[in-house]
Amino acid sequence: MGGPDRVWNHQQSNRRARLERAGEALGTALSGKILPANRIADLLHQVIECGDRVCLEGNNQKQANFLGKALAQLDPARINGLHMLLSVIALPEHLDVFEKGVASRLDFSFSGPQAARLARLVMAGQLNIGAIHTYLELFGRYFVDLTPRVSLIAAEAADRAGNLYTGPNTEDTPAIVEATAFKSGIVIAQVNRIVDTLPRVDVPADWVDFVVQSPAPYYIEPLFTRDPAQISEVQVLMAMMAIKGIYAEYEINRLNHGIGFDTAAIELILPTYAQSLGLRGKIARHWALNPHPALIPAIEAGFVESVHSFGSELGMEDYIRARPDIFFVGPDGSMRSNRAFCQAAGHYACDMFIGSTLQIDLQGNSSTATLGRISGFGGAPNMGADARGRRHDSPAWLKAGRQADEGRNVMPRGRKLVVQMVETFREHMAPAFVETLDAWQVAEQAGMAIPPVMIYGDDVTHILTEEGIANLLLCRTPEEREQAIRGVAGYSPVGMARDRRMVENLRDRKVILRAEDLGIDKRLATRDLLAARNMKDLVRASGGLYDPPKRFRNW
Amino acid sequence: MGGPDRVWNHQQSNRRARLERAGEALGTALSGKILPANRIADLLHQVIECGDRVCLEGNNQKQANFLGKALAQLDPARINGLHMLLSVIALPEHLDVFEKGVASRLDFSFSGPQAARLARLVMAGQLNIGAIHTYLELFGRYFVDLTPRVSLIAAEAADRAGNLYTGPNTEDTPAIVEATAFKSGIVIAQVNRIVDTLPRVDVPADWVDFVVQSPAPYYIEPLFTRDPAQISEVQVLMAMMAIKGIYAEYEINRLNHGIGFDTAAIELILPTYAQSLGLRGKIARHWALNPHPALIPAIEAGFVESVHSFGSELGMEDYIRARPDIFFVGPDGSMRSNRAFCQAAGHYACDMFIGSTLQIDLQGNSSTATLGRISGFGGAPNMGADARGRRHDSPAWLKAGRQADEGRNVMPRGRKLVVQMVETFREHMAPAFVETLDAWQVAEQAGMAIPPVMIYGDDVTHILTEEGIANLLLCRTPEEREQAIRGVAGYSPVGMARDRRMVENLRDRKVILRAEDLGIDKRLATRDLLAARNMKDLVRASGGLYDPPKRFRNW
Repeated sequence: MGGPDRVWNHQQSNRRARLERAGEALGTALSGKILPANRIADLLHQVIECGDRVCLEGNNQKQANFLGKALAQLDPARINGLHMLLSVIALPEHLDVFEKGVASRLDFSFSGPQAARLARLVMAGQLNIGAIHTYLELFGRYFVDLTPRVSLIAAEAADRAGNLYTGPNTEDTPAIVEATAFKSGIVIAQVNRIVDTLPRVDVPADWVDFVVQSPAPYYIEPLFTRDPAQISEVQVLMAMMAIKGIYAEYEINRLNHGIGFDTAAIELILPTYAQSLGLRGKIARHWALNPHPALIPAIEAGFVESVHSFGSELGMEDYIRARPDIFFVGPDGSMRSNRAFCQAAGHYACDMFIGSTLQIDLQGNSSTATLGRISGFGGAPNMGADARGRRHDSPAWLKAGRQADEGRNVMPRGRKLVVQMVETFREHMAPAFVETLDAWQVAEQAGMAIPPVMIYGDDVTHILTEEGIANLLLCRTPEEREQAIRGVAGYSPVGMARDRRMVENLRDRKVILRAEDLGIDKRLATRDLLAARNMKDLVRASGGLYDPPKRFRNW
Repeated sequence: MGGPDRVWNHQQSNRRARLERAGEALGTALSGKILPANRIADLLHQVIECGDRVCLEGNNQKQANFLGKALAQLDPARINGLHMLLSVIALPEHLDVFEKGVASRLDFSFSGPQAARLARLVMAGQLNIGAIHTYLELFGRYFVDLTPRVSLIAAEAADRAGNLYTGPNTEDTPAIVEATAFKSGIVIAQVNRIVDTLPRVDVPADWVDFVVQSPAPYYIEPLFTRDPAQISEVQVLMAMMAIKGIYAEYEINRLNHGIGFDTAAIELILPTYAQSLGLRGKIARHWALNPHPALIPAIEAGFVESVHSFGSELGMEDYIRARPDIFFVGPDGSMRSNRAFCQAAGHYACDMFIGSTLQIDLQGNSSTATLGRISGFGGAPNMGADARGRRHDSPAWLKAGRQADEGRNVMPRGRKLVVQMVETFREHMAPAFVETLDAWQVAEQAGMAIPPVMIYGDDVTHILTEEGIANLLLCRTPEEREQAIRGVAGYSPVGMARDRRMVENLRDRKVILRAEDLGIDKRLATRDLLAARNMKDLVRASGGLYDPPKRFRNW
């Protein structure tokens, strides 16, 4: 409403009222901004109001789990109807808040570990999903129509003034704090320790209202660690095709890898196979990527010039500190990650995204949404989409654009390479290629306006399976695209239903490339090609600097 | 190179060497990080090395002009071959560094005021352009393959420890500083004043190496101020069509406006025309936009719920401070802008971008590049492109997607609305619609791989002229698209060459909408509809809080 009587500082005065309530309730328990852990419920009851938008920090790595648990234990008679904003639904307490009636609405990006329970809560009407986002999209909305009223974040340490040190796991913190602190919201940080002097300041104290030292350090997941022992020879073959058929073919120098064993295999044969092809210094030089342990041999072999990261990875701290020419580190020697900037880089400054998926349909649409699970997509949509605002060129981008445009009367434009890498059968012999994505039924069940697609077919440029590479850039009709996909779908029903003549024709036109078309000797596709064949090899490759988490110490 | 002898901390030790050289050369002139202004040349000669990538802060508003001038005065015998990174080439000194031989290579986003001189330097071989970018793309590359070695930035104030206060004009500073400080680069800040206590900390001292108080405050341009007195009745008519035919039709609530009088006219008839249509609270609620003075009447009328900004605007300080429910402000009451986050929001969290252009071709491609000028595009490509990574829906996005997909057998997907607003003739009776964009010749002259297009035709959804709206979403063939464009191109040669029958058919199908088709009475399209008709009206609407810069004080 406008008009002369309008109050224009409601948010500021409401903020002051909350802070006053907190001050009264906590009294001398508060030492400046610092609160004892056993009073967290009192604080949250005072500074949160019913219906608030509350952002709880937690991505696929660092979790503000002490604050998340405290939130789930609030009295729903006092605090309810919260609208939760979460990058990732990862921990039980992220859904407990809904089950207990404290929260009712959710906007998020990814929910891998909790996808089935999330779907059940939606079906039961206990949780209303606003939307699924890609991370940078969710951060963008924090500044437009989903600004948090209260943010609960995690940092490694605070000083007594409330300055925060987030260290290598900075991740989402800067985006969340900025959106909250500069719209009269309230920022509460859990920290592992309170110190006199921080190694460096990552978040200024001005932006933080309360600090609490949690009884245990924040939870963090070593999500990007892949044990090379689990990489199969099929994956080695696919990695060889990726390097020769895509990386070398397009001169890919700036890239992001998805998570998983398929791309870990690529990382691990850079120093062997790519080296034997003379590709060092010609491909894979700049990365927007978490510090994957599987990248160590390629770094040591001199393939990698720089890595900027969304978050860090447990056990990589000393290795990163000893390789500051490669990673982004602070004056204190520890890494600085930043998911917002790394996603911007992944969108705009990379020539290729390559990652795995669960299901691909005949148009090339892919999704990780399967029946009974609402999983979200994390960063994949942002990086696995053609960046149509991009204007700088590179050989890879221009070549992909030429292939897409050839023979078409259109304004020339480059294209990002978006590669979907998948074995034709996944676990339990479920075919990866399907006539219809499960996403259609998921949409119906969950009342979504359109199916939850991870990467749209018209953004995908290549599909890579053990049977070969389908270059969708060269397809000129929906029929050609369908047959190109069938042509690499192996012995799955979709693959068996191919039009053999059309597929052979596509192969003649190099729309489909088999290993032999690329001059790849399949007999070389053994685990011997992996520069590290187990975790111990990775540690050795790092000169003993990499210190894997316990669960990966299997020697 | 890899191998056991590889040095992995070259950047850190090189940084230390530079800092030591600076310390020796400056001796006691340095007080901690603080340097007297008259020693800036000595500092730069010590900390910059030949061939460095140097980022000089300066967007379309705030300029690190003291540092830019100092750089241009360096001795090219000592410092040369610099690779300059600049958001905007705005000031003479930005090109002086090339003319004087200090720098030789340039990556940038926009060069409006210096576009002609830039083109001359390129032709003369004194300047080699890496690429033209959109802002967020350039920032993304700072973390991948264009990381600055030295950054020269501007802030409003510093404390004696080197913490910086950027205040309302934070703009690009956080992105530049983070990329530099966390890759062992060197950050030098010019500040307007040095104080004991900052109003708030925007950049922690840890991230800053040197601070110099400039003899005069940094230069800043009031770029987003449009005097309502200059808005024409044709622009009022176009604004009415925009509101009724697009904003209301698609329920546009989250948006960005380009710069210019066309969109200022829309802002100024929200409280009159849109109000008369009952649209308050139904359109234009959330903005990713600088604090345009022309938005004041709509804010006062209760149309606007929130505004997040790339940068601030001179004269709006007190008004913003008094409207904290609308703008993003810090605890000190002054605004916090952030170009990187606002561009992310503009890309992912807005349903519409609407802006003006100079030339449009028959495919709908538009460009501001004209012969003899290399101008760049700023934020337009990022916001005026379909955000293909977006996954959350809204009525506007879904409706645009349905229109684009209707009758096509494709996976349903939403679409961003990208509206190009242009009068059929621009200054000097140059037609806005052309058979071939000048961009083709500019590309040839400057040796670009592809023509510099601002917004590609396949991202444009609507073209709006005084003759009507062409809805390109509904076109099904290149011929239809061409005729839809000709059908709103008025008496320009492109418009005269229309196929009259096909255009009438497109009008029947509502692909083309005239004012009368929208039920707009053209007689109402007068300047009386503007909620403010001159600068004084804007001041009055703000309750005297808006304080226009001198050059706009024309009463």
